[in-house]
Amino acid sequence: MKISARNIIKGKVKEIVPGSVNSEIIIETALGETIVSIITRDSVENLGLEVGKEVYAVVKASNVMVAVD
Amino acid sequence: MKISARNIIKGKVKEIVPGSVNSEIIIETALGETIVSIITRDSVENLGLEVGKEVYAVVKASNVMVAVD
Amino acid sequence: MKISARNIIKGKVKEIVPGSVNSEIIIETALGETIVSIITRDSVENLGLEVGKEVYAVVKASNVMVAVD
Amino acid sequence: MKISARNIIKGKVKEIVPGSVNSEIIIETALGETIVSIITRDSVENLGLEVGKEVYAVVKASNVMVAVD
Amino acid sequence: MKISARNIIKGKVKEIVPGSVNSEIIIETALGETIVSIITRDSVENLGLEVGKEVYAVVKASNVMVAVD
Amino acid sequence: MKISARNIIKGKVKEIVPGSVNSEIIIETALGETIVSIITRDSVENLGLEVGKEVYAVVKASNVMVAVD
Repeated sequence: MKISARNIIKGKVKEIVPGSVNSEIIIETALGETIVSIITRDSVENLGLEVGKEVYAVVKASNVMVAVD
Repeated sequence: MKISARNIIKGKVKEIVPGSVNSEIIIETALGETIVSIITRDSVENLGLEVGKEVYAVVKASNVMVAVD
Repeated sequence: MKISARNIIKGKVKEIVPGSVNSEIIIETALGETIVSIITRDSVENLGLEVGKEVYAVVKASNVMVAVD
Repeated sequence: MKISARNIIKGKVKEIVPGSVNSEIIIETALGETIVSIITRDSVENLGLEVGKEVYAVVKASNVMVAVD
Repeated sequence: MKISARNIIKGKVKEIVPGSVNSEIIIETALGETIVSIITRDSVENLGLEVGKEVYAVVKASNVMVAVD
Repeated sequence: MKISARNIIKGKVKEIVPGSVNSEIIIETALGETIVSIITRDSVENLGLEVGKEVYAVVKASNVMVAVD
């Protein structure tokens, strides 16, 4: 499946913080950035996520803001 | 100003594609990732964005999905 | 690629309204619902979208609201 | 109230998974699609949601992505 | 229709900036705040929006960030 | 830091409802509106949020819908 989301960044799961409905996934990208994602607990299970697994962080361009110092 | 958004990634503006209401901003991160953002044309002006300017891509964690191969 | 988004609905592209930065995609689902999506013009090209093409509408669960009469 | 969101799909609540702050609502549409929504626990109460209740899943078009096989 | 979105703020349309696909709506709330919304051009027409019309700005709680100085 | 988000509304934290992963923040704006935000528990800690603290509610324009009666 190829998706319209313009931001698809390769990385590895570094940590999973499970909640009752949502879980927090900490991803370390191939280049060393840390990206935090909140997805449902069911998705964590459906994707078989676990620490060390290779994943992609996916973000729709309209959800990216820009800031300056 | 310090914001709750968990993803704040440093980079430089690589390209700006202006539209009538929204503009597309291509950011190259310090580590070499490319990030695409859609913000309003007014924000481009308010922030004084131009190619080469140092910026941050900012994404709320609830807007980050995870994918696997 | 398998994604965490919980809503992945099969359909066909019914209409594409191109804008300068964003385009509007009208999808008719297999079951007859109409779904409207706004994605970047570049994504329309990257995915090779055209009227009649089989596609999926993809929505993160946290972006779905509920309403009652 | 009439809202700008372009996607308003009729269905029935099939399941409610309560969390501490957010709850997961599984909706079965009139045409048989399953749609998953995450809303706050307070909204579940405010709307009087319960299994079997007629509801609408509401999604802003800018939150709909498109994917192809 | 009653919606799960937790933020529903009354105001009046102050300005409409039409684009090719999306339009920008500037709303002045009853209390004097200015709120900016981007919706599709079709929604502007469907809702009969025009300067001076009484409207509500509607925001899902998961789309509100918090910042401190 | 100056951000592209077009809606930045000053207020004070009125209540914090902690969850396992996400927390709900109730903000009372300077003008008396109530705004509800869902952010991660870690952000609540990172920003040092507590009842009475001066904050800003921040919303990207593309996440604001418009409704009419």
